[in-house]
Amino acid sequence: MAKDSQRPLILVTNDDGITAPGIRNLVESVADLGEVVVVAPDSHQSGMGHAITISNILRMAPHDFGMAGVDAYKTSGTPVDCVKLAIYKILKRKPDLLLSGINHGSNASINVIYSGTMSAAVEGALEGIPAVGFSLCDFAEDADFRGARNVVRTMARLVLAHGTPKGTCLNVNIPVAPPEDLRGMRVCRQAAGHWADSFEERQSPGGRSYYWMTGNFTNVDQGEDTDEWALRNGYVSVVPVQYDLTAHHAMAELNQWNLGFDD
Amino acid sequence: MAKDSQRPLILVTNDDGITAPGIRNLVESVADLGEVVVVAPDSHQSGMGHAITISNILRMAPHDFGMAGVDAYKTSGTPVDCVKLAIYKILKRKPDLLLSGINHGSNASINVIYSGTMSAAVEGALEGIPAVGFSLCDFAEDADFRGARNVVRTMARLVLAHGTPKGTCLNVNIPVAPPEDLRGMRVCRQAAGHWADSFEERQSPGGRSYYWMTGNFTNVDQGEDTDEWALRNGYVSVVPVQYDLTAHHAMAELNQWNLGFDD
Repeated sequence: MAKDSQRPLILVTNDDGITAPGIRNLVESVADLGEVVVVAPDSHQSGMGHAITISNILRMAPHDFGMAGVDAYKTSGTPVDCVKLAIYKILKRKPDLLLSGINHGSNASINVIYSGTMSAAVEGALEGIPAVGFSLCDFAEDADFRGARNVVRTMARLVLAHGTPKGTCLNVNIPVAPPEDLRGMRVCRQAAGHWADSFEERQSPGGRSYYWMTGNFTNVDQGEDTDEWALRNGYVSVVPVQYDLTAHHAMAELNQWNLGFDD
Repeated sequence: MAKDSQRPLILVTNDDGITAPGIRNLVESVADLGEVVVVAPDSHQSGMGHAITISNILRMAPHDFGMAGVDAYKTSGTPVDCVKLAIYKILKRKPDLLLSGINHGSNASINVIYSGTMSAAVEGALEGIPAVGFSLCDFAEDADFRGARNVVRTMARLVLAHGTPKGTCLNVNIPVAPPEDLRGMRVCRQAAGHWADSFEERQSPGGRSYYWMTGNFTNVDQGEDTDEWALRNGYVSVVPVQYDLTAHHAMAELNQWNLGFDD
């Protein structure tokens, strides 16, 4: 017990659900680096952003993760709910590290803002926990996670040693490539981009209209210091992400406005 | 028609739902400033953050808002879904202004990150639409919106004239006070703070456990340039909010790490 209490406590979550291959690969990559506790959604929670469940109830139950020494809980909530449940209900002490993912699909560029994976990491950061979100740029169920596993292990060790820069968590994206073809990790900024959405209208059997959202991501940023550039060129992208959303550089411009009230 | 097409197109949404008093007060405050179209959730969507609906269907239907000249649509989606539906499905041209709110309750400090109201404004901004989210620091259904109405009208006119600083939207919070006691508007930064959550466990009639999330907000920031300070001192807070989440100042620190892969 004394030895256990000195091992780093590693909290793991994701947004693809507790049975996704990505979270299993993540846990397997770091299981020997500390005491691992998994608290993750019981179903798919992609695109949930920083949503929390305040108008509805939450369910939570132990889950057999099938790995010796790994405690796991599944919840009906969002990824951010999972982090809050872990910190304020489940865990006896504050985690030394929060790892989220490995997400099935990219969270580079503006995807960071819609991402449940990254919002879980952000929630950890604002609770003062060093946190990293990992995403593999491959949606396939049978994606090759070998390169991603190396990245997770390396980054977990680095963050256990260094912490994260104050007020930040890390957004780590891994390109689709065999591990030997990964060219290294690059510290990047978030590329400017957005989704051009479309809504496909269909009719229910009862004749009522409904819509499916689909979209195409457009990168509008030609910079070679962006996460999109790194991924296209075979590098793992590492973006420090902050939860202070203030555009400090814009405050002076706003102070030139006449901010008196109209009548 | 020619005249109409030259009037500003104002898109309105919220997260408290299309029947909330806050959105009615917002629309009434700006109805004569342009052509107003409301696209808002058909139910409460507080705490949804930047969630989008990609794993489920969306419903959308016209809604009688009860005001001449105001087109309205209710959707089953989140506030961000509403903005996407408006831009990519409903509207014939790009809005000149997006107004979100008036939220029932504060979105100052870290609340910005959980807020559906503010995420709708952020989504507008990243689509290149000048956008403002408004929140009144009063949860009561019968809150006094008079001061907030003045603020909405003043800010809508200012943003129609100036736009918003590049890459930002505005987070405007209004303290609880009679209009004559509002001391003015202040450009602020987001105060550092977080929620200490707790989970109340209950039993369903069938004997199964469930949880309700509650929490206490803690402001850990003594700065007099913050939104929390402004609100406590009778000012309306105006925070420019950005969707580039990169912590640019942290990149140099990360570049000192050894980012090679472990074996």
